[in-house]
Amino acid sequence: MPYIPLEEHLPGITGLLEYRQDTAAPIRELTQVLMRGTSTLSEAERELIATIVSHRNDCKFCATAHTAAADVLLGEHNTCESIKQDINTAPVSDKMKKLLIIASQVQQSGKSVTKSAIREAKEAGATDVEIHDTVLIAALFCLYNRYVDGLATVAPDDPSFYTSLGGRLKKNGYNRLPQGYDHLKQTTTH
Amino acid sequence: MPYIPLEEHLPGITGLLEYRQDTAAPIRELTQVLMRGTSTLSEAERELIATIVSHRNDCKFCATAHTAAADVLLGEHNTCESIKQDINTAPVSDKMKKLLIIASQVQQSGKSVTKSAIREAKEAGATDVEIHDTVLIAALFCLYNRYVDGLATVAPDDPSFYTSLGGRLKKNGYNRLPQGYDHLKQTTTH
Repeated sequence: MPYIPLEEHLPGITGLLEYRQDTAAPIRELTQVLMRGTSTLSEAERELIATIVSHRNDCKFCATAHTAAADVLLGEHNTCESIKQDINTAPVSDKMKKLLIIASQVQQSGKSVTKSAIREAKEAGATDVEIHDTVLIAALFCLYNRYVDGLATVAPDDPSFYTSLGGRLKKNGYNRLPQGYDHLKQTTTH
Repeated sequence: MPYIPLEEHLPGITGLLEYRQDTAAPIRELTQVLMRGTSTLSEAERELIATIVSHRNDCKFCATAHTAAADVLLGEHNTCESIKQDINTAPVSDKMKKLLIIASQVQQSGKSVTKSAIREAKEAGATDVEIHDTVLIAALFCLYNRYVDGLATVAPDDPSFYTSLGGRLKKNGYNRLPQGYDHLKQTTTH
């Protein structure tokens, strides 16, 4: 039961983005630019960063939603599960391992990000912009996770909800759906 | 020494907002709407929320900057110092005490926000929108603090830097300065 009155058919972040649309608009825009804009990190790699942070923040809605988005972008479930178990042995590039470690440090606090983690990411080929974006994506999901759980929004139990949401996040990204698509809202707004 | 190349004359968040302007624009807009838009919480009260979260995240740049902004809005230094010492005995309304406690819980994690803290805030007169905004402001500063410290930006030691920045945040808010105001950048962009 959420702490504030949200539309029942809009779980997790979706109800919050409808609740105050003037704050939702820049949140959506920031997410779209970071997660779907031009980048040398693939959309799947960026979803892995969102996934590891949400998972470590124990935010069921965000972790399950972004796992689903990464899974559909990658075409398999193994990578997400593996990074949750152990980043160092997960089937991702050495550069991604180092960036996911930085994201995990950001999840703890800004001050937890170590010089050695940055150096290792650069040695593995990470660019300055990739490091910047990793830190900002991780910080953004620390916002999302706190927003979603801090107001006690509902996280559906049905796995098909997240599968559908993941597909929509792949297809439509994070922009608001245009008017007339209300029937898609439950699985498309985010 | 920041982990990525930032302009030396732009410390803290200011250099980051110049580094990637397409992500900076929605971050600025979200902050302006939340911190300076129409609200039943005063601008000073919203700066106190930013201050307590940044203080508890041990983010020197943000904590000092928003303390300065709250101080200049309130016309005194005592309130900020008091909330950092003990929210319960600080010279703010009972409603603000309860909202600052919620903000402190958000700083820890979304799941740390308790039903009893929400109930007490409502009993003290907090509206649903005030609770929503408190959680989102606290979550936003968890983003800022991680962004600023996660990339090891520089926090000036000179108190006059923050006094000047606080004055600019009161006068101009969080929007980007128009072209031609570059000479004000160091103390006005945020």
